[in-house]
Amino acid sequence: MKKLINDPDSVVVDALHGVAAAHPELRVDFDHQIVFRAAAPEAGKVALISGGGSGHEPLHGGYVGVGMLDAAVAGQVFTSPTPDQVAAAITGVDGGAGVLQIVKNYTGDVMNFEMAAELANAETGVEVATVIVNDDVAVQDSLYTAGRRGVGATVFVEKIAGAAAAAGKDLAQVTEIAQSVIDNARSYGVALTSCTVPAVGHPTFDLPEDEIELGVGIHGEPGRERAKLKTAAEIAEHIVNAVTSDYDFAGSETIVMLNGMGATPQIELYLVYGEVAKLLAEKGIRVVRNLVGNYITALDMAGCSLTVMKADEEKIALWDAAVNTPALKWGN
Amino acid sequence: MKKLINDPDSVVVDALHGVAAAHPELRVDFDHQIVFRAAAPEAGKVALISGGGSGHEPLHGGYVGVGMLDAAVAGQVFTSPTPDQVAAAITGVDGGAGVLQIVKNYTGDVMNFEMAAELANAETGVEVATVIVNDDVAVQDSLYTAGRRGVGATVFVEKIAGAAAAAGKDLAQVTEIAQSVIDNARSYGVALTSCTVPAVGHPTFDLPEDEIELGVGIHGEPGRERAKLKTAAEIAEHIVNAVTSDYDFAGSETIVMLNGMGATPQIELYLVYGEVAKLLAEKGIRVVRNLVGNYITALDMAGCSLTVMKADEEKIALWDAAVNTPALKWGN
Repeated sequence: MKKLINDPDSVVVDALHGVAAAHPELRVDFDHQIVFRAAAPEAGKVALISGGGSGHEPLHGGYVGVGMLDAAVAGQVFTSPTPDQVAAAITGVDGGAGVLQIVKNYTGDVMNFEMAAELANAETGVEVATVIVNDDVAVQDSLYTAGRRGVGATVFVEKIAGAAAAAGKDLAQVTEIAQSVIDNARSYGVALTSCTVPAVGHPTFDLPEDEIELGVGIHGEPGRERAKLKTAAEIAEHIVNAVTSDYDFAGSETIVMLNGMGATPQIELYLVYGEVAKLLAEKGIRVVRNLVGNYITALDMAGCSLTVMKADEEKIALWDAAVNTPALKWGN
Repeated sequence: MKKLINDPDSVVVDALHGVAAAHPELRVDFDHQIVFRAAAPEAGKVALISGGGSGHEPLHGGYVGVGMLDAAVAGQVFTSPTPDQVAAAITGVDGGAGVLQIVKNYTGDVMNFEMAAELANAETGVEVATVIVNDDVAVQDSLYTAGRRGVGATVFVEKIAGAAAAAGKDLAQVTEIAQSVIDNARSYGVALTSCTVPAVGHPTFDLPEDEIELGVGIHGEPGRERAKLKTAAEIAEHIVNAVTSDYDFAGSETIVMLNGMGATPQIELYLVYGEVAKLLAEKGIRVVRNLVGNYITALDMAGCSLTVMKADEEKIALWDAAVNTPALKWGN
């Protein structure tokens, strides 16, 4: 295993020291492994938190800042944060208007965030709402998941619900728009290589030099099938078909993300995006905004995923609203 | 070789189709493989161009936009663009105030940009100034290079000179600030793995599973030495010592970039940045701005590089000035 680390057991907290050094506008609670917006709590604003296992950077710490999250809780690599950690985030960001927690659909995360909400509510009376992101169309159940996995749409939920909260919407309204993002977004991923969890030291799965994993999860969970290595055009077609056969985007305006899994160079991501854009246009799907890059990763996995969300006027306006985080920054 | 491509020979133009699809604010000349700012040429503004071999994305196409480059010329992977290509960029961006070309110090690039300047000047009379970036302290001469290689400081030159041009400085002034960035910046890189050029199909160099290349170039050129895999803290110390023993940054304000080579996850980059920040502080070097991420890559190489630039008030103000490009975006 070749990684730029000191000790497999201290990867997350060591990386958080780098986050703290790089971003004076954030505040890191090293004990609870939480990245806070330094300005949080903000009185009267609905606060947003998210979190989960580490290894998906920039998700979630890279999305803490103005117009997105108020805090992100970091579990160990690919491991849910504990209820105590999450509860500390909830009470730490509450400005009196309640807290929305954005949870990816993995059994451990769902359970621990739910317990955290109860703990925090019992402690301070804070009102906590929860949305569960479950956009991955690849498989119905999976390792660590009952139902669909939560992947790329999480970035869209955090951006759009974050903008709604920044605009002064109340907890019910912010929760509603978050849920609407989830309901209207679908994702699908492909791996060219496995990832290697530092504390494990060897690849999570074996993938022969001429094969790819179609429908892979962001922890290396198996997808729909193994296939021989294909061209980018063929892979794009497979991905686009998987996403669009699950939700009818035809005739709609959409926001699209072509995401890298961590070890895929940007030249390849743009190349795939070119193929995806062509295929979506052929299906009458209009892309009005896009992201191409590493937004939700799986450590050092090579591969990519596609997320497509149907966008109405409100969601586009919230997408365009000012955001200032380490990983998404515009409009200010 | 596992890559998300269609054909090793069409990687660059295929990726440019994705850039065009993703960025309506840019205009792509596919024949000459040039990414233009759609608003270029801008009458009366000094225009900036850069370019070189592809495979270093987001450099250079990702830095085309308001406050940075007016055009980026893409050669084939790791291959200089031809004089014809570069001349088309020069004449395409000239708004009457002259053109500064920012060239990384590789023999082919230096020669071809020089010929392009003569061609363009002969054709339209455009005034062309050139700066050569040569910030890599690893080796004196190298494969493809007489003198020091040009690496990470290129990003700083493009940002700071781009802001100077946007602020209305004339060609001599923009050239002077660009040269001052070069004179005050130093870089050094480390590889954990080789990269693989698509048209070659196998890794550029062999690196055993327990070894790293210290001082590597962005095309996989050899550095100073092979070493056994070390901890991130030890690697950071080696890098910081290489950079700071070449230029006395002690007591200065600096802008620092901890850059990923393409296949290194962000969690590792932040981890290394934490070590680097600590070491710089111990040496009395004050970091006033920083970047942590993939800014100048070497295809799918795993590894990182450090760039440190001494920053005065003028450079910090130009750094902070609004920029709106695919890969750098703030202040607007």
